[in-house]
Amino acid sequence: MPLWQIYHPENAFTDEQKESLAGVITEDNHRFVGIPRFYVNVFFHETKYMYIGGKRTTNFIRITTDTIARAMPTPEIRAQAMAGTEAFLAPFIKERGFDWEIHFDETPRDLWRVQGLIPPESFSDAEKMWLEENRPVPYYDVDPIVPFAG
Amino acid sequence: MPLWQIYHPENAFTDEQKESLAGVITEDNHRFVGIPRFYVNVFFHETKYMYIGGKRTTNFIRITTDTIARAMPTPEIRAQAMAGTEAFLAPFIKERGFDWEIHFDETPRDLWRVQGLIPPESFSDAEKMWLEENRPVPYYDVDPIVPFAG
Amino acid sequence: MPLWQIYHPENAFTDEQKESLAGVITEDNHRFVGIPRFYVNVFFHETKYMYIGGKRTTNFIRITTDTIARAMPTPEIRAQAMAGTEAFLAPFIKERGFDWEIHFDETPRDLWRVQGLIPPESFSDAEKMWLEENRPVPYYDVDPIVPFAG
Repeated sequence: MPLWQIYHPENAFTDEQKESLAGVITEDNHRFVGIPRFYVNVFFHETKYMYIGGKRTTNFIRITTDTIARAMPTPEIRAQAMAGTEAFLAPFIKERGFDWEIHFDETPRDLWRVQGLIPPESFSDAEKMWLEENRPVPYYDVDPIVPFAG
Repeated sequence: MPLWQIYHPENAFTDEQKESLAGVITEDNHRFVGIPRFYVNVFFHETKYMYIGGKRTTNFIRITTDTIARAMPTPEIRAQAMAGTEAFLAPFIKERGFDWEIHFDETPRDLWRVQGLIPPESFSDAEKMWLEENRPVPYYDVDPIVPFAG
Repeated sequence: MPLWQIYHPENAFTDEQKESLAGVITEDNHRFVGIPRFYVNVFFHETKYMYIGGKRTTNFIRITTDTIARAMPTPEIRAQAMAGTEAFLAPFIKERGFDWEIHFDETPRDLWRVQGLIPPESFSDAEKMWLEENRPVPYYDVDPIVPFAG
């Protein structure tokens, strides 16, 4: 989380371009909202059958993003997030002649777990530790997990 | 947007059926809520491993839809949207003997961009222009995109 | 619904492990919130290009869940749902050495249809019938489906 899913036609990106784009998304998310880098998931899905307005296309990139870790509380922050995203995507998509579309969804923070752990509160000391170590580190005494007993 | 994702077993649809279904979804969305046709994204995902109630199935069509462009404010409009959807899907799914399930999600309009542009307000003059041209046309002086400077 | 989507690298699960995991998810959902078993959809998506923190990985399992049928109204219920999920997932993921992450989304119940039917109210007699028969059974006089006439 955020979870970026990139639906693309065959041969839209080389392996190197995928790695580069994933890196740019990660760094932008890290800098813009200060989240640990390992929070950023980027998945590429080659999608053979894409239809826009009822017509099949092989020139379209569609990105969906589920955001969880950071609330975006003001219109200004939300507009800035989208503008920043478009800026770093442009060399990979717009400048290469693809059409594209993107939307973000916002999902509940309390229904999210990383490596079985409740992710630390935003900007907490525990989150700073996760950011510095760049991995999920236990930071509380984990209660025994008690599954529903039926 | 709306983004329709159709998860289906192997050989559920021919290329012609995919194109026809994408066209029907597009026309229904266009007529029902008056959106530009190119807003409608339909992606087909062949899904080999689908389990319903714990049993693997090769006879199930699952559709998810992310709706963004139009609010559906009343229970009547929401019920009508679902009923209309079932009606146009039936020849492609129900009448061919498949089981199926569908749900819509609603995502925030301000976290959505088409071709880098903020989509025009619903029923605005700019949206009418997009509808008539059937493509995203710049309709405002775009601010320089200023990515977060870190 | 719930719709579980499991994004995994190549060869993460055998067919037997997939069937077993889908069964465990189904039984847990059925016992924890009392829903009919056939409500539970589990799809596996082999994902070749997964990047975490900008680095490609072949050791990561990512699960997304869209929940619809049952509201989870209290923090305790929500925490218990996540803890129970981690417990039953562990033998398939954690104990086999994979990294993993999971999040749930909650989508509107009134924009959901199963086999064209409005799913019965939670804990209603009609839902009990669906649970016992383990399939969607008509339980109301279906209004003629009247698509939008344009």
